[in-house]
This record gives sequence, structure tokens and C-alpha cells, in this order.
Amino acid sequence: MIHFNQEKLDSLHNIFKINLINSCSGYKPANLIATVSKKGIENVAIFSSIVHIGSNPPLLGFIVRPSGEVPRNTYKNIKETQLYTINHVFDTITDDAHHTSARYDENISEFDATNLQVEYKKEIKAPFVKGSPVQIQMQYVNEYYIKENNTTLVLGKIINLFVKDEIIDKDGHLDLGKANVATVTGLDGYSIPKLKDRKGYQRPKASVLINKKC
Amino acid sequence: MIHFNQEKLDSLHNIFKINLINSCSGYKPANLIATVSKKGIENVAIFSSIVHIGSNPPLLGFIVRPSGEVPRNTYKNIKETQLYTINHVFDTITDDAHHTSARYDENISEFDATNLQVEYKKEIKAPFVKGSPVQIQMQYVNEYYIKENNTTLVLGKIINLFVKDEIIDKDGHLDLGKANVATVTGLDGYSIPKLKDRKGYQRPKASVLINKKC
Repeated sequence: MIHFNQEKLDSLHNIFKINLINSCSGYKPANLIATVSKKGIENVAIFSSIVHIGSNPPLLGFIVRPSGEVPRNTYKNIKETQLYTINHVFDTITDDAHHTSARYDENISEFDATNLQVEYKKEIKAPFVKGSPVQIQMQYVNEYYIKENNTTLVLGKIINLFVKDEIIDKDGHLDLGKANVATVTGLDGYSIPKLKDRKGYQRPKASVLINKKC
Repeated sequence: MIHFNQEKLDSLHNIFKINLINSCSGYKPANLIATVSKKGIENVAIFSSIVHIGSNPPLLGFIVRPSGEVPRNTYKNIKETQLYTINHVFDTITDDAHHTSARYDENISEFDATNLQVEYKKEIKAPFVKGSPVQIQMQYVNEYYIKENNTTLVLGKIINLFVKDEIIDKDGHLDLGKANVATVTGLDGYSIPKLKDRKGYQRPKASVLINKKC
């Protein structure tokens, strides 16, 4: 094993450190967040920090980076409209999805700069990414400022959820492998996993409980 | 596409809803958090909510569920000792890793209830999971209570990071596929992805910028 202690971590070259720390948490979801500004300019950007907060109410969070550094159109649009969509990245759009991480000005839509196509659904004002096998319309709920590094956890509620018919199991679980959904490691590593198995709900082993009582 | 609107989401059977909402955010990391109580009882539990907060300082977060419902030994031990470790789940331990989700009493160590083996490293008081290709010693930093559903974002700093030699790329990126690291969907779906490609740092396309100016 290679051992990075605090001293070694602190002395790493910046790019090496960013790659290492971004990949050490494990596989991450690959999602496109789509928004539209008050002026009607659409924005779509890749995020790998979407995290399940709870099912009842259905809440998802994601992390936005320091607002002072570069324009953060996604966050700005969400604050203006309270609406956004989360769209799963899948095999044939990974190049375009990743390219949305380039820093375009706010008057340029990444839908114009890539082959990603916008989709509007009946009575929903936020744009979706066409063809995405899981599309979620979110309503902004709250945010928590993380003072330790000037980031923000943005919290939203699932309002409308669209799922490709063939990936939904009988018990509600989504088999993302059937739709070639992507996962990210670090800043730019992409994989297209296939489901290996489902392990079911776990109960304590009787043998362990009996041994403990003896 | 199957469409779940708010009314439909609210009326779903509880198990179906939990499976659906837990899998709709995409692929999640599969990590074992290991701790030890003040009394010396070790605990290890699977988490899929570890999220990258920032690289400088190196911060990771994770979500703990409502403390009132069931004993939350991981959280309790972290509050007692300020220390925990994050260990990647890999192919041959997925059954045991998933079994740690069973609700054992706090006087039973999941290291005893499974074939997972504990590892202690020189001068580090927190236990690791032996054989894990990425092992991270964390120091508790802060927590943010999420009032919307009575959960908590626990924030920690990376103090020591141990990585299997053969998975680290020249630029610091970790190729988790080389060590058969697992990813989770929903509550119990496991996959062992292989890296497809790395896409590199993205800059705006000159053609888009020129068109916009014309």
C-alpha cells in the first residue's frame, strides 16, 4: 500500500492531489443538472456529487463549489427559478456530458455547445436532457453552507420522476445497467457498470445472537 | 417512460418507494465505515452516501439517518472518539459488507458477525477493514443537521490515506476497476465496474466562442 499521511498530502502537486482526493471516495453518480435562467438561457452541467438524503419526503442533495471563483450558472438559475432537473448520463452521451464541465460564459448554453438535446415536458418549466433513462424534476428546498471550505449543500425535493420502462424492477429498484448508465471516478474517469447481484434486506444471524448470549 | 408525479410518489407502497428513490440518484460508492467505541467495541457498517466535499482541505461527508429510530453505533463512536475509517468494498467481500446493514446491538461487533477482518495500523487508533484497496483515516470536523428530514451531514478530514500500489495512475487518479471495487444502486444492488475511459480537462470549443461573437 502507498501511504499518504497529512504531510505528504499537503506537499502533493495540486493536480495530483485533486485527482487523488476526488477518486478516493469511490464510484460517483454521473448526472447532468439542467436549468434555465429567468432570461430563458438554458444551462446543463455535469455533477458527480448528487447524494440521497431521504425517501420520505424524497430529497436529494448536491454540492456546489465556491461561488466567488467562477460563474456558477446552475446555482444562479436554481436560485432564480427554484427549479432544476437531474438527468442520468448514459454511454452514448458521456463525451458531451463531460464537455459541459468546460467553463462557458453564462450567455452560452451547453445545449448549443454540445450534441446534448433539450427536452421539455408538458406543464414542466425546467428543461430535461433528451434520451436520459432517468429524468428527475427537482424543486429547491433549502441549502446548507459548509463553512470549512466555502461550499454549499443544495437540497431539493423530487417533484416528477421519469424512468425508462425496461429498467424498473418489480419492487421499484432501478437496474441502471440495462440503460448503460455511467458512473464517474475522480474528475474524468467513466465506467458503464452492469448489475452483478442484489443481496436483499439483512437480518442479524441467529448464530451470532445465540453465541453472544451463551 | 414511466412517469411518477407527486401524487403517484406519495401513494406508492413504502418498500417500492424506498427502492425507487434510493436508486434514482445513480450509482453510489460502496464503503465500510469502521469505528471503535470508548469501551473498545469495534463497529463496521456499510454506507453509500459518502460524498466529496473538497480537495483542499481534503474533506468527505456522509449522511446519517435519524438518531431516534435505531441505535446508530457508527455515529455514536465517531462522536466519542472523533475518529473513523472509510474502506472501499471490493468483489470478494460484498456479501459480508452488505450484511453489516443488519441491525446488531451495540455490544456485538460486525467484525465478529461476518468474515470481515479488522486491521490496525501503526499509531492509528481507528480500525480498518483488512484487504480493502483504499483505506482512509478520517478525523471528525463538524456536522450539519438537515432539518427537512432529521438527518445529519457528518464532515470529516482525510488524515491518512492508504492506496493499493497498482491502482494509482501517474497523475493521482485511482483506477478502482483494477482492484474490483464495488458500487451500489438502491439499497442492495452491487456492480463491479471497469474503467472505460478518462476524458481529460475540458476547455470551451473555439468554434462555439467564434459563432457566438459573429
